[in-house]
Amino acid sequence: MTVVPATLNDTKDKLVLIDQTLLPNEEKFLELDQVEDIWEAIKKLRVRGAPAIGIAAAFGLYVCSLKSKATTVVDFRKEFEEIRDYLATSRPTAVNLFWALDRMTKRFEKEANKSVEEIKRALLDESEKILAEDQAMGKAIGEHGLSLLKPGMGLLTHCNAGGIATSGYGTALAPMYLGEQKGYKFKVYADETRPLLQGSRLTAYELNKAGIDVTVICDDMASLVMKEGKIDAVLVGCDRVAANGDTANKIGTSGVAILAREYDIPMYVLGPTSTIDLETPTGEEIEIELRDEDEIGNGFGRRTAPEDVKAYNPAFDVTDAKYITAIITEKGVVKPPYMENIRKLFE
Amino acid sequence: MTVVPATLNDTKDKLVLIDQTLLPNEEKFLELDQVEDIWEAIKKLRVRGAPAIGIAAAFGLYVCSLKSKATTVVDFRKEFEEIRDYLATSRPTAVNLFWALDRMTKRFEKEANKSVEEIKRALLDESEKILAEDQAMGKAIGEHGLSLLKPGMGLLTHCNAGGIATSGYGTALAPMYLGEQKGYKFKVYADETRPLLQGSRLTAYELNKAGIDVTVICDDMASLVMKEGKIDAVLVGCDRVAANGDTANKIGTSGVAILAREYDIPMYVLGPTSTIDLETPTGEEIEIELRDEDEIGNGFGRRTAPEDVKAYNPAFDVTDAKYITAIITEKGVVKPPYMENIRKLFE
Repeated sequence: MTVVPATLNDTKDKLVLIDQTLLPNEEKFLELDQVEDIWEAIKKLRVRGAPAIGIAAAFGLYVCSLKSKATTVVDFRKEFEEIRDYLATSRPTAVNLFWALDRMTKRFEKEANKSVEEIKRALLDESEKILAEDQAMGKAIGEHGLSLLKPGMGLLTHCNAGGIATSGYGTALAPMYLGEQKGYKFKVYADETRPLLQGSRLTAYELNKAGIDVTVICDDMASLVMKEGKIDAVLVGCDRVAANGDTANKIGTSGVAILAREYDIPMYVLGPTSTIDLETPTGEEIEIELRDEDEIGNGFGRRTAPEDVKAYNPAFDVTDAKYITAIITEKGVVKPPYMENIRKLFE
Repeated sequence: MTVVPATLNDTKDKLVLIDQTLLPNEEKFLELDQVEDIWEAIKKLRVRGAPAIGIAAAFGLYVCSLKSKATTVVDFRKEFEEIRDYLATSRPTAVNLFWALDRMTKRFEKEANKSVEEIKRALLDESEKILAEDQAMGKAIGEHGLSLLKPGMGLLTHCNAGGIATSGYGTALAPMYLGEQKGYKFKVYADETRPLLQGSRLTAYELNKAGIDVTVICDDMASLVMKEGKIDAVLVGCDRVAANGDTANKIGTSGVAILAREYDIPMYVLGPTSTIDLETPTGEEIEIELRDEDEIGNGFGRRTAPEDVKAYNPAFDVTDAKYITAIITEKGVVKPPYMENIRKLFE
């Protein structure tokens, strides 16, 4: 376990986030209780990673609701729903955001016959439960993932689905942390993951901090390191898994998956079942978020492309289920046929 | 035709190079006649692209030899060979470097019964011939390449095999320049090409300067733009082609080729026949140059990976011939079986 990216301060009235956009050069903690600041932190990827977004949204919804001066449940509900609906617009493709906000809403409704103060305490309890469950989930995902790996393996990961994207162990990185505790001595390759470099900034940072052997490569080096036999398995996280196993994740994941299949390397997607969206039948229905062109052409404090040249900056891609060897959740390892086996998880 | 990257100054005693490491922010021309400076310019990629390296090496060998005070051919040859052997160590994988230096050596030997002054004039003549032939070659490659393309196509390219890598038209970009003249209105996507960003810095710069519609993407976006149907053909250059068609080119090329095959998009390699090395039977024999780790972790004037984390920085990869739809040379289009059809080119 490394840094917990989203939690509460000691007096439990502020959301505490490590600003991931400043890593690895600076470890800065933000203490937030304004809804606009929390929205901005999610939007600008100061907090990122599907589970961490969910935890931040739940705590964020709680700390903003806490300040309400409403004395009736009707008035309090109106404020609560306004905060919730606003936070929901920060990252339209992050299913964990909606999942966490929905769960907080259900808890609100469950307690709606109680006083405003009691509902506030229930919202705190619910958001703390979301955090604790995520920590247990990370460990379970790590154990299931580790069952597919052997000591000394070379592992490739793309983007960051680590401790810093969740509440501690991470998803894709969880088997690496558990393996390290058991002396597995993995050799991890981290794609730097352009444009925002979550791989070189965050994955390399947290694995290195945990004493794991990690090497950064550029995204266009994945094919060669696979060909050279350096990679025995690919482990990635997921932002949304459709009912048929198609997986939306950081841009570039689909390319890594196609290369892995070509080189006959297992491709594992790791994530909590909350990331699986049975109401999305296939990847075709997943909308791809387009981000600011300047993240590509001006992402390092100086221009790397001519100012008057266009850039195309999709945040995600969808990996076709046929390239995925297994989907690893806290409930176990799911193999094809996905349509059938994913449904079994929820029975 | 855009900028000619390597030529001589008016008095023909200095090699003139545009410093490609400063593009697209600054257009700075270097005037060099010291062998260490020319070696450094090739090593540090101030001049890059297989043909441009050959031209720079030929002119460089000439301007350095020109300063010799030797009065006998025996003494002059000794100095000439020292300069040549030193320049040969600047980029060990660039076959055009050796090809140009060999050609200059052969011309020297052909004139060896003449005076030192006459040999110097012959060396100037030979290096100017190399430049003129390269310009004619670029146009021929462009015409053969264009014969495979249709107006309005979306084209993807990786790295820079453009005017700036050659003497004007380029290799991979030559069909784009010729197509533009004929109103083909291609839509070009340029992979930024980490770590040194030749795609976003150079390809985007020169295509945009020529009025061609160009969009920069990060390397990990190639899979998605192909899946979205934006790409009808991939065009790349080459640093060395083995006798069986295996092709060494900028790191990432093999990944793009595998994706192109998966999405059923033709993958074209464009280059002069001087890049084909019949003495290299397959890609297995091509040594991969490893470059400085800091190009990855500290390439933008600030750190993008923790200082104490390793990086792996191979400059090239080898694309297996089975992923290549055709190799386009100045002598025509070569299709599989490559072993047989490449040999026919040289008959």
